[in-house]
Formats: sequence, C-alpha cells, structure tokens
Amino acid sequence: MLTYAESTAIQSDFAARYRAVRTHSEAICAGLETEDYVVQPTADVSPPKWHLGHTTWFWETFVLLPHAPDYRIFHEDFSFVFNSYYETVGKRVLRTDRGNLSRPTVADVYRYRAYVDAHMHRFLENADLSLLESLIDLGLNHEQQHQELLVYDIKYILGHNPLFPVIAIPLTPVVLVSALALPVAVSEGVYTIGVQDTDQFHFDNEEGAHKVYLNAFSAEPSLITNGDYLDFINDGGYQNFRYWLADGWAWVNTTHANAPLYWHRVEGDWWCYTFEGLQPVDPAEPVCHVNYYEAEAFARWRGQRLLTEFEWETAADKLGWGQRWEWAQSAYMPYPGFTTAEGAVGEYNGKFMSSQMVLRGASVATPAGHSRHTYRNFFQPDKQWQFSGIRLVSTHGK
Amino acid sequence: MLTYAESTAIQSDFAARYRAVRTHSEAICAGLETEDYVVQPTADVSPPKWHLGHTTWFWETFVLLPHAPDYRIFHEDFSFVFNSYYETVGKRVLRTDRGNLSRPTVADVYRYRAYVDAHMHRFLENADLSLLESLIDLGLNHEQQHQELLVYDIKYILGHNPLFPVIAIPLTPVVLVSALALPVAVSEGVYTIGVQDTDQFHFDNEEGAHKVYLNAFSAEPSLITNGDYLDFINDGGYQNFRYWLADGWAWVNTTHANAPLYWHRVEGDWWCYTFEGLQPVDPAEPVCHVNYYEAEAFARWRGQRLLTEFEWETAADKLGWGQRWEWAQSAYMPYPGFTTAEGAVGEYNGKFMSSQMVLRGASVATPAGHSRHTYRNFFQPDKQWQFSGIRLVSTHGK
Amino acid sequence: MLTYAESTAIQSDFAARYRAVRTHSEAICAGLETEDYVVQPTADVSPPKWHLGHTTWFWETFVLLPHAPDYRIFHEDFSFVFNSYYETVGKRVLRTDRGNLSRPTVADVYRYRAYVDAHMHRFLENADLSLLESLIDLGLNHEQQHQELLVYDIKYILGHNPLFPVIAIPLTPVVLVSALALPVAVSEGVYTIGVQDTDQFHFDNEEGAHKVYLNAFSAEPSLITNGDYLDFINDGGYQNFRYWLADGWAWVNTTHANAPLYWHRVEGDWWCYTFEGLQPVDPAEPVCHVNYYEAEAFARWRGQRLLTEFEWETAADKLGWGQRWEWAQSAYMPYPGFTTAEGAVGEYNGKFMSSQMVLRGASVATPAGHSRHTYRNFFQPDKQWQFSGIRLVSTHGK
Amino acid sequence: MLTYAESTAIQSDFAARYRAVRTHSEAICAGLETEDYVVQPTADVSPPKWHLGHTTWFWETFVLLPHAPDYRIFHEDFSFVFNSYYETVGKRVLRTDRGNLSRPTVADVYRYRAYVDAHMHRFLENADLSLLESLIDLGLNHEQQHQELLVYDIKYILGHNPLFPVIAIPLTPVVLVSALALPVAVSEGVYTIGVQDTDQFHFDNEEGAHKVYLNAFSAEPSLITNGDYLDFINDGGYQNFRYWLADGWAWVNTTHANAPLYWHRVEGDWWCYTFEGLQPVDPAEPVCHVNYYEAEAFARWRGQRLLTEFEWETAADKLGWGQRWEWAQSAYMPYPGFTTAEGAVGEYNGKFMSSQMVLRGASVATPAGHSRHTYRNFFQPDKQWQFSGIRLVSTHGK
Repeated sequence: MLTYAESTAIQSDFAARYRAVRTHSEAICAGLETEDYVVQPTADVSPPKWHLGHTTWFWETFVLLPHAPDYRIFHEDFSFVFNSYYETVGKRVLRTDRGNLSRPTVADVYRYRAYVDAHMHRFLENADLSLLESLIDLGLNHEQQHQELLVYDIKYILGHNPLFPVIAIPLTPVVLVSALALPVAVSEGVYTIGVQDTDQFHFDNEEGAHKVYLNAFSAEPSLITNGDYLDFINDGGYQNFRYWLADGWAWVNTTHANAPLYWHRVEGDWWCYTFEGLQPVDPAEPVCHVNYYEAEAFARWRGQRLLTEFEWETAADKLGWGQRWEWAQSAYMPYPGFTTAEGAVGEYNGKFMSSQMVLRGASVATPAGHSRHTYRNFFQPDKQWQFSGIRLVSTHGK
Repeated sequence: MLTYAESTAIQSDFAARYRAVRTHSEAICAGLETEDYVVQPTADVSPPKWHLGHTTWFWETFVLLPHAPDYRIFHEDFSFVFNSYYETVGKRVLRTDRGNLSRPTVADVYRYRAYVDAHMHRFLENADLSLLESLIDLGLNHEQQHQELLVYDIKYILGHNPLFPVIAIPLTPVVLVSALALPVAVSEGVYTIGVQDTDQFHFDNEEGAHKVYLNAFSAEPSLITNGDYLDFINDGGYQNFRYWLADGWAWVNTTHANAPLYWHRVEGDWWCYTFEGLQPVDPAEPVCHVNYYEAEAFARWRGQRLLTEFEWETAADKLGWGQRWEWAQSAYMPYPGFTTAEGAVGEYNGKFMSSQMVLRGASVATPAGHSRHTYRNFFQPDKQWQFSGIRLVSTHGK
Repeated sequence: MLTYAESTAIQSDFAARYRAVRTHSEAICAGLETEDYVVQPTADVSPPKWHLGHTTWFWETFVLLPHAPDYRIFHEDFSFVFNSYYETVGKRVLRTDRGNLSRPTVADVYRYRAYVDAHMHRFLENADLSLLESLIDLGLNHEQQHQELLVYDIKYILGHNPLFPVIAIPLTPVVLVSALALPVAVSEGVYTIGVQDTDQFHFDNEEGAHKVYLNAFSAEPSLITNGDYLDFINDGGYQNFRYWLADGWAWVNTTHANAPLYWHRVEGDWWCYTFEGLQPVDPAEPVCHVNYYEAEAFARWRGQRLLTEFEWETAADKLGWGQRWEWAQSAYMPYPGFTTAEGAVGEYNGKFMSSQMVLRGASVATPAGHSRHTYRNFFQPDKQWQFSGIRLVSTHGK
Repeated sequence: MLTYAESTAIQSDFAARYRAVRTHSEAICAGLETEDYVVQPTADVSPPKWHLGHTTWFWETFVLLPHAPDYRIFHEDFSFVFNSYYETVGKRVLRTDRGNLSRPTVADVYRYRAYVDAHMHRFLENADLSLLESLIDLGLNHEQQHQELLVYDIKYILGHNPLFPVIAIPLTPVVLVSALALPVAVSEGVYTIGVQDTDQFHFDNEEGAHKVYLNAFSAEPSLITNGDYLDFINDGGYQNFRYWLADGWAWVNTTHANAPLYWHRVEGDWWCYTFEGLQPVDPAEPVCHVNYYEAEAFARWRGQRLLTEFEWETAADKLGWGQRWEWAQSAYMPYPGFTTAEGAVGEYNGKFMSSQMVLRGASVATPAGHSRHTYRNFFQPDKQWQFSGIRLVSTHGK
C-alpha cells in the first residue's frame, strides 16, 4: 500500500500533467476563428470543436462518472455528440455527420471543458488514484493523440480553403540529423520487439515483447527530402504504373494525384500550403503528406525499399527521428499474445488490425513526451493528411 | 426622358427598398450563433453566410462593377467563393463544397455587406438609374428569394441537430381562410395565363401571357392539414405502392421515408421540429415539408388530384393562400415564346426547365411583397425542405 | 350478344394477330448468337431473352392463368424471373440483376414461348373472347412495345462490343418526306387532343380527349439531319453551357458526351455503329440517339425550339414521320380525368408521370401498326438509346 | 548444354503437361450451358469464357508471339478483350465490363483455344525449350490458378441464380484427417520460411527463404466445421460488435451478412448452395466461404486465434490440409529481398501487396499438383467466394 507521501506525489503529478495536457489542446486551437472549429471537409477530418469535446467526454465518461461519486453529467446529449468509435457506450454520431452540427457551439464546448476540468482537478487532488493510474495515463495519452489529429485536421481545413489562411500552431521542435551522417547498420540476428518495461505507459498494441529474426540491413540516416521527391515527380513517377502497387495505381487514376497533399503547381513552380500560408516547396525539407502508396512507389523508383517496423525499432536509437512519421513496410497486425481488454477501453487499438499500414517514429505534430521506440502508429495506405514521410533502407542493405 | 423630380423619386424609392431588403436578410439571421452560419448538412442546403455573401456578390458583380465607375472590388477571392450557378462569371465553388469553407468568416461577410451597402447607397442616391431599373428590381427580388432559402436552410441546419435549438425567425403573417369556406368553382373556357402587365416586376418565366383552355373544376378552399395527412400515414400510405409514382416509390424505399420532413415518432406520438423546438404535431395546421411524390400519393389515396398550375392561377384570387407553397400537377416548362436573356442574368430561370415541378402561391417564409398570382416556383419532386403543402381539386371537379 | 359468325371472326382475327406479333418478336432475334441474349451492359437495357420471357409471362399471367381453366403454369420460378415492374404480382427481379442470370437458358425461354403459344392458340380459337378483347389487345401492344425495346437493346449490346458485330434486324420501312416540302402551318385556336374514337386500341395515357388552346406555329417538314447536327458539334455545341439546361450541362460534364450515342471519332472522321457495323456518319440521315438535353441544346443553338406534344399532335397528319421518335417540349403528365385502372394492368403508364419527357411519332424500330397520332412515348431526358431525333418549330412560328 | 535425349524428354514432358492442363480447363466447363459462360454477376467474378480466353491469350502473347517465328495472331481484337491486369501489354477491358461482352462467342473462344493449342503443341514438340522452361511452367501454373477461379466463379454464377442449378464440376479428392488427431505442437525457435529448393516451380512471392523466430504454439488438427460455426451464429456472433474488426463490423452492417456465402435460412433451417443444388447445411463439413472478418470474429468468439502464415508453414507437414484455404493472421507482404521481374510477367504478384490477407494450404477446387507448403494465396479480407475455411491455434498454444 502507498504511504500518504507517495499517494500525494502521484496526485500532484497527475494533476500537473492533466493541466499541461488539457492546456496544450486549447493552445493548439488558440489561433482559430470560431468558424474553423466547425467544418468537416472530408470524412477523415473531424471538426476541432469535436476533438475538444470528445477528449472531455472521455474524462467524463471513463473517470468522473464511474469514480467521482458526486459528479453530475454536464449535458445528457453530449455523450451522443462526442462519442467516437466506442460501440460499447451507446449510439455515436456518424463520423461523416460531425461537420453538420453547429451546436453545441464552440463556447458551449469550452464551458464543457471548464466544467469537467474543475471536477477533474478536484478529483485528482482528493481521490485515491492508486487503482486508476493506468486509466488516467490512457486518458492523457488519448488526448495527446487527438492533439496530433487536431494539427492534421486544422491543416486540412485551412489548406483546402481558397484563401489559404496563415495561423500560429505550436509544433514540437525537432533536432535535425546532419546530412553527413552514415547509414545505420544492423547485423543479422535475433532481436526483441515490443514493450519490455511494462511499467511505463504504452498502448496495448505495443505489448507482447517477442523475438524476431532479422537479416542484416542498413537504414538511411535521413529522411527523403522534397528535392528527392521532385526528382520522382519530374521523372514521371505518377505516370508510370510500374512503380505502384495495384491499389496505389488505382488511387492515382481515381484521384488524379500528381504530388503530395497540399502541393500546387502554379505557373510551372511547386508551392505547398503550410501554416505560414502558401509557400514555395523547399527542396531541403523532408517530404511530408505522402501516403503509403507514394512512399512505396518512390522506393521502387529508387530501387530501394522501406524499413519494416521491426527493422525500424531495432535501429531506432541510432536514427534521428521525429520530423515525420515514417511509413513501414509492415501491415498493422497483432503481436503474439495480443488480446483486447474488457469494456469500452478495450476497443482502443485491436479493432483496426486489418488493411492499415504501420508508421514509426513521430512528427513535429506529435506532442512532446508522446513518442517512444515501440510506438505503433497506423493509417490506411491511401491517407495523406497525417505528417508522414519516407525513410529508405540504404542500398547497402537492400 | 425623366424629369429631375421623377428621377429623384425613383432613386429614393430604390434606396429605401434596397435598405429594407438588405436589412431583412440580416434580420432573418439575427438569432443565429456564428457556428450556424457555417455548416451545410446536405447538398441542397447552403450555409447562411453563403447566402449573405452571395446576395452581396450579386450587387457587386452586376451593379457596382459595371456601373459605378470608381468602385473597387472588396476582395478578389470572394467572387470565386460566392458565385452560385452563374457559369458565365468564372469558376464557381462546387455547391457541395460550400460547407467546407470556414473562411471568409461570418464577420468578414458582414464587413463585405457593409462595404457593398455603403457603395450601393451612394450609387442609388446619385446615379442615373433610368436604364437600371429592371436590374435593380431583379437584384432585390433575387435577394428576397435567398431570404426564403435562408429560412429553409436554417430550419434544416437546426432541425437536423440533436439538440433541436429554439430560434426566433421573422416569418410573414398570413390571414387564414375559414374552414367553412366553399370550394372555388371555375367554369370551362379559355383563360389567359402569365404576366399581362409587364411593367410590374416579374421573372422571365412568368412572361408570355397566353391562352389556355380549361375544363370546369373546383378547388378546395383550404390546405390539407396535419390531421388529414396523419390519416394517410395511419392508413399505411407509405407502405402501399399503389398510391405512388414509380420514382416516388423508389424514393420511399431508398430513404425509408414514413412522414413529412422534420416529423419524429417518439413513443407512439408524432412530434415535429419547428423554430420553437420539437413540438407535438398540431392536427389543425396545414401539412408542411412534403415533396411532390407525397403530395401526389396523398391525392391518389384520397381519390382526388392536385391542381395544375393553370387551374391554380385562374382560381388564385378566390383562394386563401400564403401558408404553404402548393404543389401543382404541372412540370416546370417554358411558356410560349420564352427565351433567355443575354448574359449572366439570362441564366436565371430557363436552365432549370427539366425534371422539376411547379409550386404556386407563397409560404410563411416568403418575404412580404414577393408573391403574386403569376409567380412560378419550382423544385425537384423529391425535395421536402421548402415550406410546401397540398391543395386538392374538390371531388366536385375531379 | 355476338352471333356465332361474329364471335368466330373475332377469334380468328385475334389468333392471326397473336401469331403475327409473336412471330415478329422471334424474327427480331433471329440473327442473335445465344450469348447476345444474355448480357445487360447497363441498367436500362434488358437481355433479349428477358424480353422474350417477359412478354410470354404476360400472356401466361394475365390471360391463361385467370381465364383458361385447365392451364398449368410452365415453371413456378419464371414468374419471379420475368416479372418486370408489376408490383402487384409478387417480387420481381431487380432490374439491374437481369443480366446476371444465365438460367433459364435461351432454349428454355423458347420452350416457354412454344408452350404458352400452344395454349394461347387453343384458347384464342375456342374461348369466348367477348369480355377479353381489350386485355388481348393490351397484350399484343405490350409485346410490340417490347419489340421496339428489343431493337434498342440489341443495338446497345452489340454497339458496345469492341468487335462491332453486323446483324440482320427487321426494321419498319418508312416513306421519306421530300426535303423540298414546306413548313406545316397551324393557325391559332382551340384543338382537341387525345383519343376520341375510344373503340380503337390505345393506352390509358392517351385517353381524356380535351381541348387545348394553341398559338399559331409552323413545324419544319423534315427532321434534323446528321449534317445539321455536325454543325452544332463543330461550332462547339458540347463545350458551351449557354445552350444547355442545367441538368443537361451536368450530364455533359459527367459523361464527357461530345456526340450522339454510337458515334465514334476515328482519326478525325465521325463513324457510328449501325446494324451494318461501324459506318461513316451519313450527313443526309436524320440524326438519331440524341437525348432531350441534346435536342433542346441543338434547338437553342439554332435559335428555334422543339414542338410541344399538343402542337405535334395537331400537325401530325401533315408531317412525314416515323423515322425517329421526336422529342417534344412537354413533360409527361396526365391528361384531364386520367385515372389508373384497378389491378396489375393499371400499373401500366401512370406511375411514370414524373421527370420524363414526351416523344411523339414513331421510328424505324416501331413495329408496323403500332403508331398513331395520339401515341405518347416517354423517356427520361438523359436517355439516348431509343431511336430519337429532332424536329423544330420553323422560324416562322417561333 | 543438353543432350538430344534430355532435350526430347523436356519437350515431351511439357507437351504432356500442357495437354493435361489445357484439357482440365475445358473439363471444368463441360457441364455449363452457353449462357453460363457469359455473365459476370459481380466485379470479382469473371465470365468463364473470359478465363478460357485469357489463359489462351497468355500462351499466345508470352510464348507464341515472341518465340514461334511463323505464328500469326488469331484475332487482333482478342488481345484487348482477354488481357487482364497486365498494364504492360496495352489497354485492357475494365474488369467490371467483362460480363457485358456477348462476343467473342463461346464457340469463338473454343476455336481460339484449338488454334493456339495446335500451335503450342507443334512448338513444344519442336522448339528448343531450354531457355523457356520457367516461362512455360509459369503459363501452366497460371492456367491452374484460373482453373481454381473458374470453379469459384461458376459456383457464384449458379449459386446466385434463383433456379439453383445442379452441375457436375470435377473437384480434387482430399484425404480427410481423423477427428481424433491431436493438436500439432511446434516448439519455440528459429525456422526457415519460403522456397529453399528454387529448382522446383514456385511463384516469385515464395522466394527469399529467410529465418523467423516463432514462439511455441499448437495448431488444431482439423478445420472448423459448419456445426462449430452454427454455434457462433446461434450465439449472436453476427450481432455483437465485440468480436469484429472495425472494418468487419462495417462489412456486417453494410451487407447485412448473417452467415457464410451461399447459406440461406429457409423456414428455420439453414441450407447452402452446392454444385448438387440447394442442400441442408452438413454440420460435419468444414465451414467454407467465410471471409477474413468472419474467420477472425469466430476465433475471438472462441477465445482463440488464427495461425500466422509462418506458423502454418512450419506446421504444414503434420497438418491434414487441402479441403479449404486457411485464413492466416498475416497480411500479404513481401519476403526479404523480394523484387519484381522485368516485363509483363513481373506484374504477377508483387503489385497486390497491400490490404490483402494470406491464405495457406489448398482447397478441393485447387487443381492436383498445384499446392505446396510454401504457397501463398491472398485475398482481400471481405472476400467470401473462394473456398476458404478456418483453422485455429489450439488453446494450448494461444
């Protein structure tokens, strides 16, 4: 059993972390106009006010309602509006309908946040949290995941507006690796993958530490740049089926894609939308907003390949990463022994284990403290709006 | 040529009418939250801020830019954003994309209105309007049409929100006809249809006064009520294909429709969304938000029929109308001699002359002064969100 | 009551007509390969074997089963397979699924025809037909309608095959009108429209003879030719929105249409598929396979217009017609007093009275004896696969 | 260099194998009616005549045209019609359009086969095949793959016909494993996966023998039966989202699936379509025609899991297999060092390496001689029409 001092230390740590995380969600949105909070230009993008409400609903539903005895729900209908994919907890708003809801207003959502935050602070400072640590950790990490999605979705909303608005968004500073760095070589052998220190926070999909056998390989020390990618475009990469997976070639032909998301060709020059507005494409920047099909096609065109997620994890401590999520040549599948937890929280990750690809690392949109070597991100192979880039196995280790 | 006094009278009349119409558009929106201005829950519905911007763009594009020598455009991109269906005037925003645009903001749109209004007032008070009267009349009537659409669209936006918000919307008072009134009988013969006094404002589709031969008929003096319509529902009207046009039956089966738009069955009782929130269906009210398929099916079930638009126009001065637009058993087709005007304004009405049905009369959402016996409204036969109702030919005149 | 001689005359007339009609259906298909009977390349087109089966099912279901006491059904499942749109008579095969059914085979269908024909001949020669005359007439005309559709559908099936097969199809010879003929002038006044001699066979939609008031007009004596239509194409007709209805312009942009159906541009020349294979477009032939949007756009481009169906009917006896169905500037709506008959046969025409346009006249694909001045054909305005052409009001009578 | 005797032995072996394979394709179709060869009831299913033509086109295009000097193409247009997914070799018929083509006829296709077979036999008996062995092996295996698809597609065509036809189809006899057999245990360690003896025929996706590290596991000795699967159905398996992947649950809700493909509930009993017609579901038979979502949901419901493809391959020589393809808990991804061959033949397998799942083993529809431990079959996770079943890891080795 915990001593009083230990118990208080946990409480104050959680209260401080809760405050920091909650504040950061609102800081991301500080530059938005009210209207920017509301729209949903495509099914994958959620309105920012929905993210702010949904993360609040998580605390209300999974922490306050079951564990804070005197807690009274803020508004009966918000559970319906702000549920996401949790089938266990009643009927959810169809994902593509979120952008149709003008109410609750943005002000209502901020009132909801303030109400829940007040109750959460009281709860975190007074309750016995010894049995709730992992739940609170999950809530904090859940909100951080939505912080990253907020950045994606705000960029999509503004980047698809003909006025290309400028906005201040807090991104995470990343230390760049020198372009002179050498490939990171890993020798053949058996390696252990997955979370080993299970006391640290991690998602269920990282559990099940297990051995894998890897052939020797070398990873390129830096990410593919816009300049590299322009070579692919200029060499007719989007016009030649040979480089593409069948699904990828169908995607090119259906969408008439000819560049990463947010790129525009204006009178012969490539520009791209950034939070600073429409800017010339910088050839030195790592390429961003490519989907798996593009990453794979680029690799084939170069005669190289992407790393598998196991290779990436094994080499991770020698790689400079964090600018872009790196597409792995690995489908998102369970680790040995993976099982889903009971209840709504158990719906977290396992249900997405088909037709998605793994991304490893982190990006400038990832909140500080929300990345680790074992973290498994995943998106469908046609998605571009996440901050995803390309790292290749070097030709030494093809 | 006009005398100075006549010219000033025209000017002050237009200036006063302009002010009244423009103020009314904003009065309709006075109760909205910022978020309500932004969303587009279905392709037919436009965001309220779009209506406010589009009507302003009309004045800027068709009056100020060509006729006010010193006028400078408010913002280059607004023409792109606020054009509607005018193919002549450059590339328009795809109708279904309007709800994706968080910018220009609502405040921007009101600034745009203020800027154009200031220029319009100066223009209307000083310019020689003698050659522009019909254009200004068109602009005023165009904005009134959008005022009616604003009411429809606001109702749709709020009526599809799970919170069913209450809002104050200025509707047009209507004098009700006594339920004791007798059918309106019209005898067989030749009648003239269409605008005869072409000096009064009218749309191009009302021109071409022409003779039609009508058989004798009688029109019911009052509209079908919710109570009447409930009889149809309770008699299995939505389950029996015999009452329905083939397209209507397909619509029923695709949409699973079982009542007018905005009706909800809650624990055995019928409720409907109104601007006062969710209310019990009032059996004495005229039924509203039925589409042509429903109106036609109801008439067949009763063994009666709808009036044609020519019958309606002939009987109009003896009918009490204005609560609901009345579906006519008439497709929307040109009158003899109809031609489209040159230029963008010529795109007004003629291009819609296929696969739409005529509605006659007016509704509580029609702005005062924007109705007349010859007015031809039209919607596709599956549309429900306009304020449409049902009047039948009485059994005497089947 | 009929004398024996009269009764026998009716019988032998019906028996002879039945034989002639049934034989003609099979004559149309005589040149087909078995495979041609089976496919359904688009939802509007039915497999030829379906037409042969469906017309047979009509005789079995509406004549033999209710009226021939000893008749035994050929196969229980055929009713399911060969029902078309008759909601009254059980569950029908979804229209777009017809082309998925390899069974019953073509040989099965011909066996079904032979079986029903044998029973029908016995029935027509022996039964008292005095109360069944209109039903048998309807059956004969129903089969003739499907004969015309058979020609359309066979053309579509073969005309969309990359091998462009040649096939012998019996078409109806048409006497051409001299190109020197003068416009047909009709003077202003009241005219009667619809079937007046109701003893002659006609469909329910032609009933309700009624007066209409027409302005004076003149109809062009001949149909628009391919040569005329090429002028429209070469003048950029398909690229200029001004000529098109809004729905028509959407159709052009969605389908990328740039010519009538079956036209192909091969190395700068226009060819079209005919039953003789791919042939150069003959500028002297009347244009065929245009939809309402194209007919209407062509007329606007010429500064003329289509006739209304009432104008057409009034002028019909002075027009040379029968090469192409002529699009009327008239939506397909009921005549005064129109009601649907009780039972399945009552589903015949009335249910299609929304969003369709009228065509008048006949075409080379119309069976001999299946046309008259009052005949109302109808198709949706985007359909091209029927043998439809264009006649304009002459500029004298615009 | 080969001796004359060796060279003749190769020739006679290839000639005999060619004859056997080609004959088997036609034997599968021997019971079809002409009409059965033509239809394409869904995009995944190809008309049988297309399979017969496409496999013939393969020999013509890749063997005869480049290697038989005097060969003259059978028909210029067949290349267009019978190409499948080979982007390298010109424009192909859109996959969903195949069922619209009534020509070439079935008789034409058999003439094509006879023509190509005559040339192939002359070629195989006379040419120097020493450099073509792998190409001819690929052609034979390619045709065997289409033989299996022929069985799937014929079953789909007839199984979706309301007459449920009976047909004789040659299936491959399979030796059943005793139900008393014990789980197959594999101990922890490093195992080699993929083709090691590269002289034997194999596809490119099996190459790249490589080591994997496996935890200990046991595989169930027999496949899940219909009886087992009925328990899942009866326990509400299709109604409970907890058992399903998110994509799977969306599939259930979109398709209203409630049983494997071809199962029908008739008055409380389950029947399924087989080549013997509609038959009662046999509880002792291994379940068939389940997709990955169903296999995965069934496993979760049982608290077990599917084998990975590596586990399956390691245990394969102790498993009785061949009745049903077995869904693996493995996405279809490349083995280390995988590269695609140059030219059209290189399009074979690699392009499908996204969003598909692996199946291992073989089925009664797999041609004799076309299976091995290293064979990697793959389908999208929603597909049911292949002969796929379920094997679980036993609870000892969860």
